[in-house]
Amino acid sequence: MRHHIVATLTGLLLATSAAFAQTAERKPYNELYYQRASLFDALGCDSTSIVMLGNSLTHGCEWHQLLGNPNVLNRGINGDVVQGLRDRVGSIVDGRPAKIFMLAGVNDVSHDLTADSIAGAIVDLARYIRTATPDTKLYVQSLLPINNSFGRYKHLDGKEQVIRDINALVRPQVEALGATWIELYPAFADADGNLRSDLTNDGLHLLAPGYRIWRDILLPYIDD
Amino acid sequence: MRHHIVATLTGLLLATSAAFAQTAERKPYNELYYQRASLFDALGCDSTSIVMLGNSLTHGCEWHQLLGNPNVLNRGINGDVVQGLRDRVGSIVDGRPAKIFMLAGVNDVSHDLTADSIAGAIVDLARYIRTATPDTKLYVQSLLPINNSFGRYKHLDGKEQVIRDINALVRPQVEALGATWIELYPAFADADGNLRSDLTNDGLHLLAPGYRIWRDILLPYIDD
Repeated sequence: MRHHIVATLTGLLLATSAAFAQTAERKPYNELYYQRASLFDALGCDSTSIVMLGNSLTHGCEWHQLLGNPNVLNRGINGDVVQGLRDRVGSIVDGRPAKIFMLAGVNDVSHDLTADSIAGAIVDLARYIRTATPDTKLYVQSLLPINNSFGRYKHLDGKEQVIRDINALVRPQVEALGATWIELYPAFADADGNLRSDLTNDGLHLLAPGYRIWRDILLPYIDD
Repeated sequence: MRHHIVATLTGLLLATSAAFAQTAERKPYNELYYQRASLFDALGCDSTSIVMLGNSLTHGCEWHQLLGNPNVLNRGINGDVVQGLRDRVGSIVDGRPAKIFMLAGVNDVSHDLTADSIAGAIVDLARYIRTATPDTKLYVQSLLPINNSFGRYKHLDGKEQVIRDINALVRPQVEALGATWIELYPAFADADGNLRSDLTNDGLHLLAPGYRIWRDILLPYIDD
């Protein structure tokens, strides 16, 4: 009898946990997230693909044209957070792409999470990708600096050091996982550690000259 | 003397008009507009390009993968209006692309403009493109239906007929210009003329099944 109750409870817990996982997986995001995620799932990718995985900085660019390679796929979603990437990366790792370039975390920073917890989530995502598709070359890109003098994103006020802390925490851990670290930060920062004001019009996103710098950094890894 | 004043006034007017045009051209939009427009200007296009020109419906898709053609370029910007397209189409027509597929107007509808004025702006844009790059095949796509039962876009409430009126006004005028009309509306509408609820999660934008329908309609024109 006691055994039966335990078994039933375990069953209930498993069912609840599965239901929770399903709900947690796809419900906390905005409509755009599900529009894009459903498209990415439908399009898929394959062993020739080079996947740009990220948030609005990735979404905003035309990567296959910028990098001159038709295998490059945009998998960015405006406003996405690290857990958002984790919740939609399944159909990407299933395709066993040649390469994945990931960049996320700044939206988590704007949600007031700590550097430790954000870095932990980035490393967990990198570990998941490395385990799920070990033949895929994984490139983890540093967060870019921000520039709060534009006064556009109040939730990023005073968070410059959080971004630098995340980069410092993530790099050794993802390198230990066999991923390649791509240091974007210095090329985009001015002498004060702010996003160069000639590269942005809102202190967070990039104008064309910013994407040109990014391209020059990425091209050796794309052709690698 | 009078002649001199007239000439000076004309010069001043021209200078003011040029300055106004420059200001008017790039100032009334949000930051994302200038981020994307600067990128599009920098990337350019050429005689092999197939340009998808539009708003968020265009921006949200990965066209070169969906259509299986590396020459397909995404030139969509979330929230863009017909005048926004006009203000950034210069670098596109300069490239003399093989084809341009345009779709815009629903954001103008949400800004409470009349069907007449929106249709007029779409036709003007089509005429400009036809004149500026006559060898480019121009495809004007009908506006899609919306579905206000989602309650997401209050500024579109009750505007279903405005969309149908725009389509009816635009079609004969752009066909007279030598553009090809692509009728998207019926494939996306339910029996009541609303955007099919299985194709959207907000009554305006598309989930993967919507883009699949769009692809099937476009492919014959892409391969044409």
